[in-house]
Amino acid sequence: MTAGPDTAGGGRVSRRRMLGLSGAGLLVGAAAGAGVDRALADHHETPGGAVPFHGAHQAGIATPVQDRLHFAAFDVVTEDRDRLVRLLKEWTAAAAAMTAGRPVGRGAVGGVAEAPPDDTGEALGLPPSRLTLTIGFGASLFAKDRFGLQDRRPPALVDLPHFPGDKLDPQRSDGDIAVQACADDPQVAVHAVRNLARIGFGVVSVRWSQLGFGKTSSTTPDAQTPRNLMGFKDGTANIPGTDDDLLAKHVWAAAADGADWMAGGSYLVARRIRMHIETWDRASLAEQEQIIGRDKKEGAPLGARREHDPVDLRRLAADAHVRLAHPDSNGGARILRRGYSFTDGSDGLGRLDAGLFFLAYQRDPRTGFIRIQRNLAGDSLNEYLQHVGSGLWACPPGVRRGGYWGDTLFR
Amino acid sequence: MTAGPDTAGGGRVSRRRMLGLSGAGLLVGAAAGAGVDRALADHHETPGGAVPFHGAHQAGIATPVQDRLHFAAFDVVTEDRDRLVRLLKEWTAAAAAMTAGRPVGRGAVGGVAEAPPDDTGEALGLPPSRLTLTIGFGASLFAKDRFGLQDRRPPALVDLPHFPGDKLDPQRSDGDIAVQACADDPQVAVHAVRNLARIGFGVVSVRWSQLGFGKTSSTTPDAQTPRNLMGFKDGTANIPGTDDDLLAKHVWAAAADGADWMAGGSYLVARRIRMHIETWDRASLAEQEQIIGRDKKEGAPLGARREHDPVDLRRLAADAHVRLAHPDSNGGARILRRGYSFTDGSDGLGRLDAGLFFLAYQRDPRTGFIRIQRNLAGDSLNEYLQHVGSGLWACPPGVRRGGYWGDTLFR
Repeated sequence: MTAGPDTAGGGRVSRRRMLGLSGAGLLVGAAAGAGVDRALADHHETPGGAVPFHGAHQAGIATPVQDRLHFAAFDVVTEDRDRLVRLLKEWTAAAAAMTAGRPVGRGAVGGVAEAPPDDTGEALGLPPSRLTLTIGFGASLFAKDRFGLQDRRPPALVDLPHFPGDKLDPQRSDGDIAVQACADDPQVAVHAVRNLARIGFGVVSVRWSQLGFGKTSSTTPDAQTPRNLMGFKDGTANIPGTDDDLLAKHVWAAAADGADWMAGGSYLVARRIRMHIETWDRASLAEQEQIIGRDKKEGAPLGARREHDPVDLRRLAADAHVRLAHPDSNGGARILRRGYSFTDGSDGLGRLDAGLFFLAYQRDPRTGFIRIQRNLAGDSLNEYLQHVGSGLWACPPGVRRGGYWGDTLFR
Repeated sequence: MTAGPDTAGGGRVSRRRMLGLSGAGLLVGAAAGAGVDRALADHHETPGGAVPFHGAHQAGIATPVQDRLHFAAFDVVTEDRDRLVRLLKEWTAAAAAMTAGRPVGRGAVGGVAEAPPDDTGEALGLPPSRLTLTIGFGASLFAKDRFGLQDRRPPALVDLPHFPGDKLDPQRSDGDIAVQACADDPQVAVHAVRNLARIGFGVVSVRWSQLGFGKTSSTTPDAQTPRNLMGFKDGTANIPGTDDDLLAKHVWAAAADGADWMAGGSYLVARRIRMHIETWDRASLAEQEQIIGRDKKEGAPLGARREHDPVDLRRLAADAHVRLAHPDSNGGARILRRGYSFTDGSDGLGRLDAGLFFLAYQRDPRTGFIRIQRNLAGDSLNEYLQHVGSGLWACPPGVRRGGYWGDTLFR
């Protein structure tokens, strides 16, 4: 259906060039079309830019957090391992093209008019918008009698324990394969997931998907910290995507961790966290600030003046969120957060169905999310939250030129 | 709970000024803070700008279409007409503040710490982002024995007929009051609807809401026409928001139309149109182009070369969408479209729940949407669509300084 991964970085024209558009965006499109591995580092900072697809790590983890998210979990509906591997190769080629701002295959108007287009077309003319596509494999993919992977399940790919207050909907949890699409333009992120689903027809089936309209974490400490739907700055003390030492310690898995195929990869925890915003909105400002442990206006830790001032845990209530989530309260545990706010209509009870789609990457969830989430059992914020969806996926290392998503696992 | 409408245009500081931020966006924020009616016309073209709230017509109709949408339909849960009118006044003050980039009331950190904040805070520090808030009243509000409005129901506010293929979900249809929030930043649009819902607690209840991630129509003919999820340019022949003659003829209601309180207002039809994108994606390019009546790459009418070339209806198939929707096929009927693409997770059958949230404004739906939609009964596109939500609302004229949303109806 699509070209193999070997041609992914070839000389195909970008969406923008194909349409013959001119103007300031042309340079970016032309650079992207010239080869994804030559995309410039400063594209990270360009709204219309392309983020390199190939590399030691998958993009979309340490990459500066983009504005919008479309996340999809897939079930594999074939029992044929070779067919699954073929799909992963097709997906890789498509992902390399789309992240470079090019259409899938021969494009929405390429090939012959008598055939369905290779690309669905809704991103024609749009810049790459810093699209990243990040893949992860769930524990169910490693089940016995499926694809012969039962001996390759990483020790860190545990079954997440039940946490107090969890009310998980199986229709919004788990999945054999997860794809995180992040971009500054939601149309580009949705286009990417939709085309992967299209290419995967008959091999995978969309289990659930989630749109995130606003990022709630930043991995660039000098950028303005975004606010979550509680109105507070979120992710102030996140792991910077530029800090290689912290990333190596807390985010990237190593061969010594028990699954050599995961070296350079990471573990993704997703939690759909419904916020009881109507209740929260009736709490006083003082109460809100006590619960979070930061002031609402500046985002400064209570007792300090500025957002990035050090947190003095002794000045926070024992059940304040920032205190319980802080590395010093968790034996130094840290995770890299990339969450997004969501609003999915209303709940039939007159309330908006809104909250935080929490995404966190870590080297090992047992010493990362699980450890911290257990410590949050006494969090005074819990009164206003409910975890309604959940998943854990092993995200393999980045794709080398000529390789494909998951090749270290399947070869 | 909030200040009265008389103070809406006062000298409150903008969100941006309040936080003491500097930079290029400051000028816009400062101008907005100085008074909404002095916001400049060229703010229409500024991504961070403010669109004036007060005027002869409501903003958000002829206004150049913003990038993102949050639409909400409310049920009125009080039987007290005075309480409803008080809410409309409170909403007006909040809308005037938020569209100018200012927080509601005393803000998220104003007032006393012992009280809940007047604003929920998640838009703190964000520019106005061309936010518009547009209100409409549904037929149910005029029911006998509710608010004494039964004699004021406009003749044009009909009950929409059943159209062939309709499969309407009552949970996504109708509502006493509709609010359309459009902005270039979705966080700003969501913040606005969420705060209106918060202010309305006990008076109104969210019946349903819809997020739109990408605009599919433009009201600025010189701008790049966006593409819908079928990959085609949509809304090429829309009514330009700058064409006063066309607006007067097709969009703005007049006193002579049968309801004097609606003079300067308009009628909004919303349709949640699910697209069977998986089926569409398996249609050949030639078939897709025949069905639409335009080529996919340029958006040109079949037989023509460029997008804005005149449509020669004789060169299109008798059941082509563009032909059946064209004014020449509908006695000159035209509507102003402001629709958005949506993706709301998946449908439990392995497919994305995606499509078009169609929004159209017109002077009279009987000679606008209803006429055109009846003519689309034979549309070959119908095989790929299903209308699953619907609503019609009478949107009153714009608010004059000192007035409130709906004052021509309630006073």
